[in-house]
Amino acid sequence: MNFTINKKCSYTRARTGLIETAHGNIETPIFMPVGTRGTIKGLTQQQTLDIGAQIILGNTYHLMLRPGKGLIEEAGGLHKFINWQKPILTDSGGFQVFSLSPLRTFSHDGVSFKSHIDGSTHFLGPKESMEIQKALGSDIVMCFDECPSSDAPASYIQEAVERTIRWAHTCKNAPLQEHQNLFGIVQGGLDPSLRRKCAEELVPLDFDGYAIGGLSVGETAEEMYATIEATEPFLPTHKPRYLMGVGTPRNILEAVMRGVDMFDCVLPSRNARGGTAFTWQGKIQIKSARYTHDFSPLDPELDAYPSQFSKAYIRHLLNVKEMTGAILVTMQNLAFYLDFMRQLRQAISSNTLDLFRQKVDAIYPN
Amino acid sequence: MNFTINKKCSYTRARTGLIETAHGNIETPIFMPVGTRGTIKGLTQQQTLDIGAQIILGNTYHLMLRPGKGLIEEAGGLHKFINWQKPILTDSGGFQVFSLSPLRTFSHDGVSFKSHIDGSTHFLGPKESMEIQKALGSDIVMCFDECPSSDAPASYIQEAVERTIRWAHTCKNAPLQEHQNLFGIVQGGLDPSLRRKCAEELVPLDFDGYAIGGLSVGETAEEMYATIEATEPFLPTHKPRYLMGVGTPRNILEAVMRGVDMFDCVLPSRNARGGTAFTWQGKIQIKSARYTHDFSPLDPELDAYPSQFSKAYIRHLLNVKEMTGAILVTMQNLAFYLDFMRQLRQAISSNTLDLFRQKVDAIYPN
Repeated sequence: MNFTINKKCSYTRARTGLIETAHGNIETPIFMPVGTRGTIKGLTQQQTLDIGAQIILGNTYHLMLRPGKGLIEEAGGLHKFINWQKPILTDSGGFQVFSLSPLRTFSHDGVSFKSHIDGSTHFLGPKESMEIQKALGSDIVMCFDECPSSDAPASYIQEAVERTIRWAHTCKNAPLQEHQNLFGIVQGGLDPSLRRKCAEELVPLDFDGYAIGGLSVGETAEEMYATIEATEPFLPTHKPRYLMGVGTPRNILEAVMRGVDMFDCVLPSRNARGGTAFTWQGKIQIKSARYTHDFSPLDPELDAYPSQFSKAYIRHLLNVKEMTGAILVTMQNLAFYLDFMRQLRQAISSNTLDLFRQKVDAIYPN
Repeated sequence: MNFTINKKCSYTRARTGLIETAHGNIETPIFMPVGTRGTIKGLTQQQTLDIGAQIILGNTYHLMLRPGKGLIEEAGGLHKFINWQKPILTDSGGFQVFSLSPLRTFSHDGVSFKSHIDGSTHFLGPKESMEIQKALGSDIVMCFDECPSSDAPASYIQEAVERTIRWAHTCKNAPLQEHQNLFGIVQGGLDPSLRRKCAEELVPLDFDGYAIGGLSVGETAEEMYATIEATEPFLPTHKPRYLMGVGTPRNILEAVMRGVDMFDCVLPSRNARGGTAFTWQGKIQIKSARYTHDFSPLDPELDAYPSQFSKAYIRHLLNVKEMTGAILVTMQNLAFYLDFMRQLRQAISSNTLDLFRQKVDAIYPN
């Protein structure tokens, strides 16, 4: 995987770059829509292309349970199975094992857990996660790590970091397909010294990129930003940095200014289904009575398909629970996030990040 | 509205034609996807265009309750409200009042009923239905009729026919927009003499087209075909004939051979959401285990977007209850119905309806 930095902001740590993969290029900073079980919820692949997605995510935990590694392998990999030609990043499954599975027991080599769907028993560790992600054939593979909850005691977080480092070695030594790239994940809770330690142990393994994991799990935004600042200086500048599971437009802007290149989050798509639209006029609750007679486009400043429809119409669709309403707002929100990243890249390129920040201050204060 | 008959089949009553409306032309025989509350369920208007829809339906009953006549009028009509530029047909609301409303009382001028949503009281008669459809601005407006249930006693069906005829006069005299066209509806249950009487009373009113209503309400297919045969000879040949709420591909073929030009039905879209796909290989239950490892396209003989995906993938999406699964099968089924009508028109044009019928016999026996 080739990563080229094109432009560095002169007054923040923000940079623009280009990741080249076997399935195409990705301009950074980038937002990656989440396609948990082989599709962005409510969208067809054509619509995901139309809103400008450059790379999407797949979730190893969900895909290993249904339809299973074997079937996707038989289909020729995840790209072929879901008919998506652009890059795919898969997570390791670790996060879901720890957050979704009702019963789990640790061993040296991974976690035994019960499926949240049917209670069947499975085992997932670094070796298994790499085997599955190899079969999925994603362009970017994530190391199997442990992401402790935000209220875990310090001693537990330390153990999780040690497991994460040990497992990173296993992942690094596991075979992958020729075109695949492997990212390491830095854990360590909100403890700067643990974060530094974890980063310093992972960097010599020379991963293709580095993720900052374990954030957006209940801490404040300030704690998140401080933890990025405590981690980023210990990551190689010439590799992409990926902040997992983050966040609001504001969170993303702050993280980009602190040197982060890649993001994923279910926020825009999940909130869409509840009727929250992210627009260039700010976040709006489209079901609110104030939009009953509002025949203006959903987002007059965004050139995306949903802007062909009025707020009043989309409100009507959501009110009568027509799927098409959720679909249009999902398209809007992801198109907005992708346009937000495009404008952010442009602002970095033209050294006008301060102006962009002022614009965001006004519409996405937090 | 202009209706031109282009070709008459030499051995059945089938014909091809062209309906010209202010919002575009419609090739007949045609199938009209149902957009109950201002959208085809699960599809965007772009997808509805992509699968080849030439005209869609809107339901007056549903739209009068939510979002209401006033809002759509304020938006400039249904076309503008939902951003659909092609023709729209609206039904009268009668069928839903009789089938969905828990409480209703008849008067000379219509029906007082309670909303199935919130129990609020409304009144709908020929005058009100015309006022609402005028506000909706649909290209084809349907007369307000009464569609009795299939087990109604003969005396009731006779009364319903009398009301339908009386109301047809009211509808005919009601003002509509310049571009709108009005269709009369023939009722009469399964009684040939009542059907004939109803048709003979309506034809002098010189409607722009004639619908056969009150079928597909529980009778057998043979009874349906016999009733079409008992009605059609009394309808003017130079006006389009519309069989309401029908049906399977087989039903449609049989009705076309008996002189019908227009169809609507929720079957393809409703069944899609349950996992039944209409394909050129026949009807398939895509959730069935036999498709688990079937990586062939959903319908190799249909050039529509869902054929870019395998049965195994779509099965997976339906199994994990991803909306995208229902969306793809909805697109498939409507694309199939529209392609079925296209091939049917072609067969009539080329005088090969017998060959087409053999093909349908093999895959859609009933």
